[in-house]
Amino acid sequence: DFPILGSDSVQPVPRFRQELFRMMAVAADTLQRLGARVTSVDMGSQQLPDGQSLPIPPVILAELGNDPTKGTVCFYGHLDVQPADQGDGWLTDPYVLTEVDGKLYGRGATDNKGPVLAWINAVSAFRALEQDLPVNIKFIIEGMEEAGSVALEELVEKEKNRFFSGVDYIVISDNLWISQRKPAITYGTRGNSYFTVEVKCRDQDFHSGTFGGILHEPMADLVALLGSLVDSSGHILVPGIYDEVALLTEEEINTYKAIHLDLEEYRNSSRVEKFLFDTKEEILMHLWRYPSLSIHGIEGAFDEPGAKTVIPGQVIGKFSIRLVPHMNVSVVEKQVTRHLEDVFSKRNSSNKMVVSMTLGLHPWIANINDTQYLAAKRAIRTVFGTEPDMIRDGSTIPIAKMFQEIVHKSLVLIPLGAVDDGEHSQNEKINRWNYIEGTKLFAAFFLEMAQLH
Amino acid sequence: DFPILGSDSVQPVPRFRQELFRMMAVAADTLQRLGARVTSVDMGSQQLPDGQSLPIPPVILAELGNDPTKGTVCFYGHLDVQPADQGDGWLTDPYVLTEVDGKLYGRGATDNKGPVLAWINAVSAFRALEQDLPVNIKFIIEGMEEAGSVALEELVEKEKNRFFSGVDYIVISDNLWISQRKPAITYGTRGNSYFTVEVKCRDQDFHSGTFGGILHEPMADLVALLGSLVDSSGHILVPGIYDEVALLTEEEINTYKAIHLDLEEYRNSSRVEKFLFDTKEEILMHLWRYPSLSIHGIEGAFDEPGAKTVIPGQVIGKFSIRLVPHMNVSVVEKQVTRHLEDVFSKRNSSNKMVVSMTLGLHPWIANINDTQYLAAKRAIRTVFGTEPDMIRDGSTIPIAKMFQEIVHKSLVLIPLGAVDDGEHSQNEKINRWNYIEGTKLFAAFFLEMAQLH
Repeated sequence: DFPILGSDSVQPVPRFRQELFRMMAVAADTLQRLGARVTSVDMGSQQLPDGQSLPIPPVILAELGNDPTKGTVCFYGHLDVQPADQGDGWLTDPYVLTEVDGKLYGRGATDNKGPVLAWINAVSAFRALEQDLPVNIKFIIEGMEEAGSVALEELVEKEKNRFFSGVDYIVISDNLWISQRKPAITYGTRGNSYFTVEVKCRDQDFHSGTFGGILHEPMADLVALLGSLVDSSGHILVPGIYDEVALLTEEEINTYKAIHLDLEEYRNSSRVEKFLFDTKEEILMHLWRYPSLSIHGIEGAFDEPGAKTVIPGQVIGKFSIRLVPHMNVSVVEKQVTRHLEDVFSKRNSSNKMVVSMTLGLHPWIANINDTQYLAAKRAIRTVFGTEPDMIRDGSTIPIAKMFQEIVHKSLVLIPLGAVDDGEHSQNEKINRWNYIEGTKLFAAFFLEMAQLH
Repeated sequence: DFPILGSDSVQPVPRFRQELFRMMAVAADTLQRLGARVTSVDMGSQQLPDGQSLPIPPVILAELGNDPTKGTVCFYGHLDVQPADQGDGWLTDPYVLTEVDGKLYGRGATDNKGPVLAWINAVSAFRALEQDLPVNIKFIIEGMEEAGSVALEELVEKEKNRFFSGVDYIVISDNLWISQRKPAITYGTRGNSYFTVEVKCRDQDFHSGTFGGILHEPMADLVALLGSLVDSSGHILVPGIYDEVALLTEEEINTYKAIHLDLEEYRNSSRVEKFLFDTKEEILMHLWRYPSLSIHGIEGAFDEPGAKTVIPGQVIGKFSIRLVPHMNVSVVEKQVTRHLEDVFSKRNSSNKMVVSMTLGLHPWIANINDTQYLAAKRAIRTVFGTEPDMIRDGSTIPIAKMFQEIVHKSLVLIPLGAVDDGEHSQNEKINRWNYIEGTKLFAAFFLEMAQLH
């Protein structure tokens, strides 16, 4: 029943690479037996930090149907999984799919093999009923997502005007609902700008007895710089940073009100004593539609247990800002750099400061009135008898951004798994109910897309 | 000529422990041949972190002369050395004493075997001339100084009313001049209070995409706490911290003025572009007679190269304050704790903060008009024809503090080595001139002590 689930096609542990190749072959074979035209694209090999060279599993490009009068929907999924070790607290063998009380436990069950299978099952259902597919279907399935989708971007770029030229909509099902029972549709993700700020006196450390008292200490400068970024209520202090944040509309507020979120349960499961905000709406907005700034750490200072009387000679602070519509990565880079230069110059320090943005990912947002959103909503009403939660993701989903920016096609994220599925964690599972209703949802989605396209 | 120098009696490498025992035996034998009554005190054994148990080399307690009409001077020295590896940039074999251009190169040459030998030589000179020693002489010589003087404190405590009861003065020669040619006497060291401040939300980290924007982030709290400690001119911001700092007298200012320090050369050899202060007097005062605060680092945050989008759940900041007369360790502990609690409470954070002082060492200062200082000054005039630099040490010298606090005897530090001797570093040396004039200095010191006692 689950030819793909329950396999140890793990990322990024090299010794599992062979299993990953087998998994991609199983998937290619399954799609071929459904009648798809399948190409397994050779992705070359990958150099690991230790010098080892590993072959990258092929990416599967598959097509079912080529009717120009129908819309074409492309599904993205991945078959690699996070590492799992039974000793870490798994109650079942992570690589043997095990059903307990209606829950299907196994690494990859919800991330992302379950949803990939549900999509395949939906296609199979039309085949079994000997019905024409309501839409043309394409698949892009990879085996390197948990390792950062190595080399995928180059492939998508290359296939932009070939495989992707006929695609009208892209569907990804690689995240979760925010509830245990209520389905959701995801229409936006935050971006991210990651900064380093280096302060250097010299490349060697000092002894605090011998030099303490006469130096502009780099740590004092850095702590002042990092302390100038955000206040105790989470408000970012970089001038101008909120200028381009989208205005809040009544319609948008209503989407937050409609979402079911048990704050008490959320707080308990997060093991957080108190959040910055007390209402559901504020919490959701500050995770999804307002920027946030987090300080990650410091490289080059004393970071071990115990006491060391060192004055670090050169330190690098790291922080990032989660970006929201309509913030612009390069504007944020300028604002942050200018702000830090300003704070630093006021200190009259003789140290050198260098600010760098090492990563800049744009936020993504879709129009929830686009065809694929209306179709997904209708399908959810049909299968689940309820309106979906219209949600966003506070993180960046790089795959979504990549499709958005390279192939410029309409995109929708339709998660199938429940909030407690434990992706990337011990005892990952997908509920039998989510898996089966999810299969029905995808089939209903094909029918709705055919009507609305 | 150098029976003790040029031996690999290294600390803390276990495989050299045997050599250290041999070295202590050579020293005991040498003192015995001078006519001293020598006790080699068994120090038991030491448990290493890896579980290995190593015997601790004996401590030598030796006595020469017991005339109640004379003063009794006790010399402390150590025969263990820092590790040295020829591959690290040594131009000669670090374990074979090698003279090049009047410089005697070898590990331990200046720290501390050269000065120990100079003291022994001074005693030998009186013996060779068949003259009575002008003072009673005692020795305490250990082999664990570079490893933290393991078990020495217990011994000194035990011998407080026995070996140390007849002692009038203690002399240590385990630091350096601050010049290449001008002798110095050290009359004070700073103390140190080492603090940790822990901020905890939960014991697991968070993902900045999933939680960024709704948390009181521990790093934001910690950066604000650390940023509240010291301003950009090095001034400590903890209320009351300067209250007990000794008032500056005209006499004290004159001691700084009298010291020769080439600021340009000091800056260059330190590889520091600019110090906080521009004059010799300010630099010396801020290293020796004013407190300083250094931030050492953060434990629990992201400290590696690269980018990680983590919100650390629990972080520990580390900083220390170098203490000066007449600051009090427990008063400083209260002031710092109260200040941080104050800053933290204003943030209304839901995190937990814990402040701990993990180390508290009192500052030490002597009266430079005490007998042993006057005697040392006169001896320096006689041998070197100059006034000494009256200096302090910005670091803590734990041995000095220990003698001060346990046996309550007058203490003086008479360094023999030049500022460029490279203790703890590659190509450690003592100049032949320093070694020979140092021997004369100690002999002259005996004579002056006899006169002044």
